[in-house]
Amino acid sequence: MKIKTGLLPLLIMATLAFCDQAAAQVKHPMIRLAKLVIDSGQLESYKAALKEAIATSVRVEPGVLTLYAVEEKDFPTHITILEIYADENAYKAHLVTPHFIKYKTGTINMVKSLELVDAVPLIPDMKIK
Amino acid sequence: MKIKTGLLPLLIMATLAFCDQAAAQVKHPMIRLAKLVIDSGQLESYKAALKEAIATSVRVEPGVLTLYAVEEKDFPTHITILEIYADENAYKAHLVTPHFIKYKTGTINMVKSLELVDAVPLIPDMKIK
Repeated sequence: MKIKTGLLPLLIMATLAFCDQAAAQVKHPMIRLAKLVIDSGQLESYKAALKEAIATSVRVEPGVLTLYAVEEKDFPTHITILEIYADENAYKAHLVTPHFIKYKTGTINMVKSLELVDAVPLIPDMKIK
Repeated sequence: MKIKTGLLPLLIMATLAFCDQAAAQVKHPMIRLAKLVIDSGQLESYKAALKEAIATSVRVEPGVLTLYAVEEKDFPTHITILEIYADENAYKAHLVTPHFIKYKTGTINMVKSLELVDAVPLIPDMKIK
């Protein structure tokens, strides 16, 4: 097939634009470990607020795939949350929901430290039976 | 209702035995965070072995509810595994499976440190969509 050389730049630009669009459409799940230390005097209030926020998020947001929160048996003020979102947009949408904002503002003085660790799953389609 | 006082000790013992039995029959899920640091030179070999062991465990052991493993994006040698077993017996059975023993013996020199943290879930029936 012969292509007029004058058309080549246009063809290359169109191909690049298509590649960009295709890349943007690939949705990567977003996985994170949130590691928190809670003020011991406010632990029960914190856990109640977290439980409510998680239950609502998972129920009403299709893109929140899980928020699996645990407290350490020996250090109950140490909380870890495995957060899985369908993609970055699902995470961004989560941040502006009324239930997340209520949780975040209501617990800000209960949280002594918060570490957010971006993570890559070993087996992306792993579930909980 | 009148009970002869001579029967009281027997009645109390029978009640206690029943309570013991009932308590033993309540199955508590066992949740743990395994925090590992892997030798950087052997990371790919380690991840392949872990992936194989996890896939087999979840497939063939009904009591292994999940083994959700992640590596930290910024420190890929730092692995965290959320382990959920149906109960302690399921965990004990897991430890003597051929695939677990193969993984454990095959990777022992790849693991620089291993911390096992017993944990309590905030919402026990939380799943991954």
